[in-house]
Amino acid sequence: MNDSTKQVATVGHWINGEAATGAGGVQARTQPVYDPATGRATKQVSLADKATVESAIAAAQAAYPAWRNTPPIKRARVMSKLKTLLEEHADEIAALITSENGKVLADAHGELQRGIENVEYASYATELLKGEHSRNVGPGIDSWSEFQALGVVAGITPFNFPVMVPLWMWPMAVVCGNTFVLKPSERTPSSTLRIAQLALEAGLPPGVLNVVNGDKEAVDTLLTDPRVKAASFVGSTPIAEYIYTTGCANGKRVQALGGAKNFAVVMPDADIPNAVSALMGAAYGSCGERCMAIPLVACIGDATADAVIAGLSAEIAKMKVGPGNDNGNDMGPLVTKPHFEKVRSFIEAGEKEGAKLVVDGRNVKVAGHEEGYYLGPCLFDNVKPGMSIYQNEIFGPVLGIIRAKTLQEAMDMIDAHEYGNGTCVFTRDGEAARYFTDHIQVGMVGVNVPLPVPVAYHSFGGWKRSLFGDLHAYGPDGVRFYTKRKTITQRWPSAGVREGAVFSFPSSR
Amino acid sequence: MNDSTKQVATVGHWINGEAATGAGGVQARTQPVYDPATGRATKQVSLADKATVESAIAAAQAAYPAWRNTPPIKRARVMSKLKTLLEEHADEIAALITSENGKVLADAHGELQRGIENVEYASYATELLKGEHSRNVGPGIDSWSEFQALGVVAGITPFNFPVMVPLWMWPMAVVCGNTFVLKPSERTPSSTLRIAQLALEAGLPPGVLNVVNGDKEAVDTLLTDPRVKAASFVGSTPIAEYIYTTGCANGKRVQALGGAKNFAVVMPDADIPNAVSALMGAAYGSCGERCMAIPLVACIGDATADAVIAGLSAEIAKMKVGPGNDNGNDMGPLVTKPHFEKVRSFIEAGEKEGAKLVVDGRNVKVAGHEEGYYLGPCLFDNVKPGMSIYQNEIFGPVLGIIRAKTLQEAMDMIDAHEYGNGTCVFTRDGEAARYFTDHIQVGMVGVNVPLPVPVAYHSFGGWKRSLFGDLHAYGPDGVRFYTKRKTITQRWPSAGVREGAVFSFPSSR
Amino acid sequence: MNDSTKQVATVGHWINGEAATGAGGVQARTQPVYDPATGRATKQVSLADKATVESAIAAAQAAYPAWRNTPPIKRARVMSKLKTLLEEHADEIAALITSENGKVLADAHGELQRGIENVEYASYATELLKGEHSRNVGPGIDSWSEFQALGVVAGITPFNFPVMVPLWMWPMAVVCGNTFVLKPSERTPSSTLRIAQLALEAGLPPGVLNVVNGDKEAVDTLLTDPRVKAASFVGSTPIAEYIYTTGCANGKRVQALGGAKNFAVVMPDADIPNAVSALMGAAYGSCGERCMAIPLVACIGDATADAVIAGLSAEIAKMKVGPGNDNGNDMGPLVTKPHFEKVRSFIEAGEKEGAKLVVDGRNVKVAGHEEGYYLGPCLFDNVKPGMSIYQNEIFGPVLGIIRAKTLQEAMDMIDAHEYGNGTCVFTRDGEAARYFTDHIQVGMVGVNVPLPVPVAYHSFGGWKRSLFGDLHAYGPDGVRFYTKRKTITQRWPSAGVREGAVFSFPSSR
Amino acid sequence: MNDSTKQVATVGHWINGEAATGAGGVQARTQPVYDPATGRATKQVSLADKATVESAIAAAQAAYPAWRNTPPIKRARVMSKLKTLLEEHADEIAALITSENGKVLADAHGELQRGIENVEYASYATELLKGEHSRNVGPGIDSWSEFQALGVVAGITPFNFPVMVPLWMWPMAVVCGNTFVLKPSERTPSSTLRIAQLALEAGLPPGVLNVVNGDKEAVDTLLTDPRVKAASFVGSTPIAEYIYTTGCANGKRVQALGGAKNFAVVMPDADIPNAVSALMGAAYGSCGERCMAIPLVACIGDATADAVIAGLSAEIAKMKVGPGNDNGNDMGPLVTKPHFEKVRSFIEAGEKEGAKLVVDGRNVKVAGHEEGYYLGPCLFDNVKPGMSIYQNEIFGPVLGIIRAKTLQEAMDMIDAHEYGNGTCVFTRDGEAARYFTDHIQVGMVGVNVPLPVPVAYHSFGGWKRSLFGDLHAYGPDGVRFYTKRKTITQRWPSAGVREGAVFSFPSSR
Repeated sequence: MNDSTKQVATVGHWINGEAATGAGGVQARTQPVYDPATGRATKQVSLADKATVESAIAAAQAAYPAWRNTPPIKRARVMSKLKTLLEEHADEIAALITSENGKVLADAHGELQRGIENVEYASYATELLKGEHSRNVGPGIDSWSEFQALGVVAGITPFNFPVMVPLWMWPMAVVCGNTFVLKPSERTPSSTLRIAQLALEAGLPPGVLNVVNGDKEAVDTLLTDPRVKAASFVGSTPIAEYIYTTGCANGKRVQALGGAKNFAVVMPDADIPNAVSALMGAAYGSCGERCMAIPLVACIGDATADAVIAGLSAEIAKMKVGPGNDNGNDMGPLVTKPHFEKVRSFIEAGEKEGAKLVVDGRNVKVAGHEEGYYLGPCLFDNVKPGMSIYQNEIFGPVLGIIRAKTLQEAMDMIDAHEYGNGTCVFTRDGEAARYFTDHIQVGMVGVNVPLPVPVAYHSFGGWKRSLFGDLHAYGPDGVRFYTKRKTITQRWPSAGVREGAVFSFPSSR
Repeated sequence: MNDSTKQVATVGHWINGEAATGAGGVQARTQPVYDPATGRATKQVSLADKATVESAIAAAQAAYPAWRNTPPIKRARVMSKLKTLLEEHADEIAALITSENGKVLADAHGELQRGIENVEYASYATELLKGEHSRNVGPGIDSWSEFQALGVVAGITPFNFPVMVPLWMWPMAVVCGNTFVLKPSERTPSSTLRIAQLALEAGLPPGVLNVVNGDKEAVDTLLTDPRVKAASFVGSTPIAEYIYTTGCANGKRVQALGGAKNFAVVMPDADIPNAVSALMGAAYGSCGERCMAIPLVACIGDATADAVIAGLSAEIAKMKVGPGNDNGNDMGPLVTKPHFEKVRSFIEAGEKEGAKLVVDGRNVKVAGHEEGYYLGPCLFDNVKPGMSIYQNEIFGPVLGIIRAKTLQEAMDMIDAHEYGNGTCVFTRDGEAARYFTDHIQVGMVGVNVPLPVPVAYHSFGGWKRSLFGDLHAYGPDGVRFYTKRKTITQRWPSAGVREGAVFSFPSSR
Repeated sequence: MNDSTKQVATVGHWINGEAATGAGGVQARTQPVYDPATGRATKQVSLADKATVESAIAAAQAAYPAWRNTPPIKRARVMSKLKTLLEEHADEIAALITSENGKVLADAHGELQRGIENVEYASYATELLKGEHSRNVGPGIDSWSEFQALGVVAGITPFNFPVMVPLWMWPMAVVCGNTFVLKPSERTPSSTLRIAQLALEAGLPPGVLNVVNGDKEAVDTLLTDPRVKAASFVGSTPIAEYIYTTGCANGKRVQALGGAKNFAVVMPDADIPNAVSALMGAAYGSCGERCMAIPLVACIGDATADAVIAGLSAEIAKMKVGPGNDNGNDMGPLVTKPHFEKVRSFIEAGEKEGAKLVVDGRNVKVAGHEEGYYLGPCLFDNVKPGMSIYQNEIFGPVLGIIRAKTLQEAMDMIDAHEYGNGTCVFTRDGEAARYFTDHIQVGMVGVNVPLPVPVAYHSFGGWKRSLFGDLHAYGPDGVRFYTKRKTITQRWPSAGVREGAVFSFPSSR
Repeated sequence: MNDSTKQVATVGHWINGEAATGAGGVQARTQPVYDPATGRATKQVSLADKATVESAIAAAQAAYPAWRNTPPIKRARVMSKLKTLLEEHADEIAALITSENGKVLADAHGELQRGIENVEYASYATELLKGEHSRNVGPGIDSWSEFQALGVVAGITPFNFPVMVPLWMWPMAVVCGNTFVLKPSERTPSSTLRIAQLALEAGLPPGVLNVVNGDKEAVDTLLTDPRVKAASFVGSTPIAEYIYTTGCANGKRVQALGGAKNFAVVMPDADIPNAVSALMGAAYGSCGERCMAIPLVACIGDATADAVIAGLSAEIAKMKVGPGNDNGNDMGPLVTKPHFEKVRSFIEAGEKEGAKLVVDGRNVKVAGHEEGYYLGPCLFDNVKPGMSIYQNEIFGPVLGIIRAKTLQEAMDMIDAHEYGNGTCVFTRDGEAARYFTDHIQVGMVGVNVPLPVPVAYHSFGGWKRSLFGDLHAYGPDGVRFYTKRKTITQRWPSAGVREGAVFSFPSSR
């Protein structure tokens, strides 16, 4: 695609505690990695073939027995140390994120911070792995349940959080005693790999964490290899469904997190300036490329809608779009050229379908970065069910206003939508908050909190077609996902041990 | 198959709190139900077509909103009341089990008792459904996680525990706020249905529990209907795998418990009389038709093996085989004619493959019940990996002795086997017990307990190909399987409420 | 006091599963038991001397070892059975309560129902007693914590809930494996004793629960006997403090619940009719003889106060006062003549101190029950800190209105008061509810719930001088109070058990 | 005592984040601090008067509101940072311990490491502080329980673990939101104070942790000041009892850990070399100045006793006694001259009472350190109940062998002893271990683990007169001790919020 790609560095894999190219032959496949701020390919990334992935699985398998037998407190301390290293290398990691994903540095730092919180939670492993013990389940019989490691587990992660989403997965998995093969997005490989190096430095034994870059060949190898016992995935719903179905059909436990179309509801009694401020970040932060972004706002009553639109329009006018590594900018470019074009086509469709484009961000120009994938904030009014911008996850800076008459009408819309990841209600009213949080068919619910991403000590997961699987990501559910229950029932037949009968023949010993 | 089948009563379904035949037309399919003690068909059972199953799902769906909103304590009290009713009707239910399954009444009562314990545990729902609450996850922000009901869920259960296995499932499911469609084994429908009637009597609203008898058509309807959110299954591994794969591919959460081949290990220091006594029940109880039966015993050292075989042979000589409803008998018939023949074929294969048939139960005759499916206890010595009686789940009164040299050798055999449901070690030695329970790749482990079925307040589940899914059956895992996590994050923007500012304009209200 | 007292029946004790008079000699002390509805002594109650209490302790001590070793599930089932018996005998028990305490039958049934819920919770013992298990706290070292019984424990309970408060204590204590000596109020002994009989019927072994009636001599014996390991108390704060100090100085663990002066706060945005309705029950239910009654209402703003007073006055006008066993009455008599006079003296003091007596209930006359201890609902306006009716727990049907300007002012008053049992805020506003619940120095907090008595699966306890001790009553804290933690750390030195080395000399055994 | 004391440096207090001398006047009391290795006074320590302690309490009180409102995750991160600082300053801290306590540096490092583990556990606060949430405890009513901070709490700690025991207390207390006043042993103040400085460096705000050195005046001020809500104590039983009684009588919650006399039991089947090795450390480590030391060993059978004595004698012969800061030494001096003399007097008493002194450590001489408080390992045989060396906690390097016939006999001795802190059984036998751990009346039990100090994620506490209070130290019980439960019950009256009724008059707002 770009003449320069042959000259740039190649990003490889991380297997058994070492950088690996994953191919000896000339036919090794690679793919360019772009800087979205400039549109230029800056690196090549190796795409692992089946044999490379299998070597990563083999490394993980080999590391498993010793790691599984390492006391949890020792595993936990590797996580504590890693947390310190991540804090020390924060600027370096954030810069790597921005250089491949495009998001502004503040967002990159925010992502890293959320990831660090998951490392921190993993470091509580001794507490989290406690089993249940029952004395005298019957006369002289005790029983207890333990949560033991699974073995080798896999993670497959998306471009939009190259640091945070991997850190949702592998730290908890390995602290539970598993070993890991991670396949990050091939569009944003570098920050993920850097952290794998830091994990080694923190004391994680070689082979416990392995990283392979790749595409469907790598994914399918992970999903079908019998040594892999479980897989975690975050991405779009069609792929999530494929991962879940394929992994389950291959006897693995799978949690596959898919797409979203998160609604906010603004009640007439809400604090409108607060809601507007919250929605700005929720809609346009990271260009809307977040599965917890708010792309739709249902305003209850026209007065509410008018006030929200006025507030948003005023705020949008102040936003600065440009390269993510310039701290003066509020929003960077979209991640890739094809994605940029797809988002634009949604805007065109929205106009054709009758929504009113109140703010059009398509004319944004960033001087000196004409080839970057920049799109300004867009705001639609009168968005309605059935429109493509209502039904689909756009993953861009496009916010739509829905005019609803009642809370119930808004909730019915939300419940009828395919997705059920996150949602939020803005109100001062206790009853409204309680009714909404109790009944809405969505997994993560905010009350005056626009991005109700659970903190690391709770768990992340949507409902309906936003998540396939039983258990949510990270937090307490992460512990359960990465362990299997073993229940022991124990009785010691009486042989007179109290009275010494069992030892009554000392001469014969 | 039998001339008398047209005259016998027909067992139907239970939909929306009423008996249902499930078919208006002449073409409704039925199948005979046999008494294994006599070999006679005593009833017909309706086989639900797709429409009938859909009507059960619709009843469950209609009952869901009100039941979901019923406070957990009220749902729990229905379970307490059901427990009382089950105790009052124990003789009647046990007789129904024996008349269709064949097991002796004492076993039928034992099964019912284990089922009642699951009802009892379900009655603790208020405690079990507690979520996690965190004040101040950020400044002025609270977050909590709840465990909400899924909606309509399904259960598919086997012939060998027509009462216990359904009671593993639906009481926990409904006490969590779900509604249920149960498809029991069409070979043993009556006791299951009777309990559904008692649940209504206990106060379970119509539609919360529905029972359909049927075959693959019914199963496939349950697995593909989008209104069904989850399915629990207990049966053989090939069917479990089909259920899991199909259910997952249809977006449901599934737990599917399959087959087993449980090993006991007898160490040289074990209390041999105690081990022999324990193994008799574990091998021959309920004719070995239990997924937690012990069909293989690895004896460490020849002296141990010789002592165990001598002890078992002596005990077998005392066993009485005959109709289950005669309290003088220790073992009843096998469940069906085809199964009876299949078990006999395994015995023949075992002999051919070189195992030594120490006790041959094939010549058992029960006077007056010549058509019953009776087989006496069988004992093989020198069973080895690769033999069909080693590899396969026989589900009959056939026990095999393996001669191993060390504990490690026995554990390696266990870990290499396809299944990992239950296992047990007999020893006095703390180190042996600890090493075994820690490392063995089996989900339920006994120490001097031959059938380590977890009590109702722990959870039941095997490893490897004995269970497909993340969560075990009943107990704490049952609660998690039948609920989904919802996490709420809440902030109330400050409006001066302490100082009265927010209410400072009373005249305008 | 009353000529008839010598002729009436004598209520004795319950020791080792049998009725006991507690004294053979003529000098045994007794005291009359009155019917508050008529003012007549209807029974005598024995007052246990030291020797009688010691015999009860001895019975409990003797029953302890076997009961402690009884599997928790069996202990729990006694509670399930007791629950059923209490439901069956509800009318009889309620009548006994009313005949000695005076409260209307509906209140007596309500009290019993809350008590039954505690029995129900105690029946979950298997779940509640689970300990924590950690594999590999070090290499090859496991550790787990259990919650073991204490031994003999005592309970001392008040007249106002003769059924409910004892059922907060002993069912949880005994289900945890302890044995119990209960000293109920000598003014209301009969319902408490009746339940002890039912517990025997439910299967509780003799000696596990013992009841002694008595006064300070009995209490002091319980507090000083070294065989008693713990004591629970509910009553007034001075006695609670004495119990706590004395029990602690004698090496026991003690939880002593004392008095209360619970405030409600009504915000200007509250649903006033709902608040008024709630306050009627909270202030006048059971004549205000509840430690969770609301005797003070802080109204924010004069408009709020005026509306609340108007509403209360209208509701009070409709109330009927009379004997508790007449279902047409809303409020019965106070419990004793001295208490009746004490409450009247508070009303007089309130008037003198400048509060405005809006409704005066002192002129109530109940035809045919002129000697009963009847007092109608009283309502004060302008109650202020420092007044005796503000500072003291009146324990009568006397409600005071405080006029406050802001929520903060009301909260400061609440926090400055000696007690901190319960409180409630009436509002629609999420921020007000959150600020109030987070910061108020009170143990049980309601939002639009006037009597926020925690359900049986949470725990009951006030703060400040309303509770002395670390752990609250019943619920999860009850489990911890009635058990002590034991932590086991276990390692098995390696002797080659895997390879058979440890059993390598079979000939010598 | 020593002429040089006036010239040496004075150790003061730490109040509100600053070093404080605690006295302006000439009459400020001080006391010398000795180096036990040399017998020389090396420092003076200020003894806080009442006013100084009150100023520390005032500082803690002032810091409380802001600290209590700091989100738990932020408080937790101060603990993570402190952990790092403690690791970085380990050598310095260990040297301070040794210079005042005398223990060898390896022991000092070991103590610090255990303390760090408590800091580490405190850093899990977000997980540990989770409350319980119940949706729909009644129709439309929710309830949850939180664990809120107490306010100002105090800790009083002993000389034998100047670092570890304070770290059991204050990190958990402050991470729960409390503020703290610590009074360490005036004999070993420096390491404790150094850590308080590091806590400030780690980000703990001034006033959250305060340290006062002192004696009874300081203690009594802490126990009686109404601003102090709770106190934790570790020391001897008579003082523990005084602390508990006094603190409770002043309305505080108190946990007071006292003395111990821990027995090991060696069964005939034990691995004797392993037991001997374990007992050497347990008996003589830190000169036996540990509440978890093993000063008594009950050997079952004379053969066992003979083998144990032979093994111990051989090991003792190899031990080196000398200054703690010389890494070649195994055992340092006792802590003070008076204690040294007291331990010697016990040895004399043991001989007089008829025990056989197998090894006499009284003649130890350390060249160049003739004034140090050195005593070599002592071993008694034939120790019996009633002897002063059996009944009393010696807190010195004196081990006694008891010859018992059966396990039951040994257990009866243990249960009859005043104390119940720790104990251990050495055996290979599962039944012996199970019987012992289940029935022994001791709070911390080892199986082949001589010092069963629970890991930081379990809790530390003895039974009988070894602990006064309900809750054990550190771990999960520490969380409960340093928090009080608040239960909220919440209902939102319906005002048609779903249909918009509540907001139906927008014009009037």
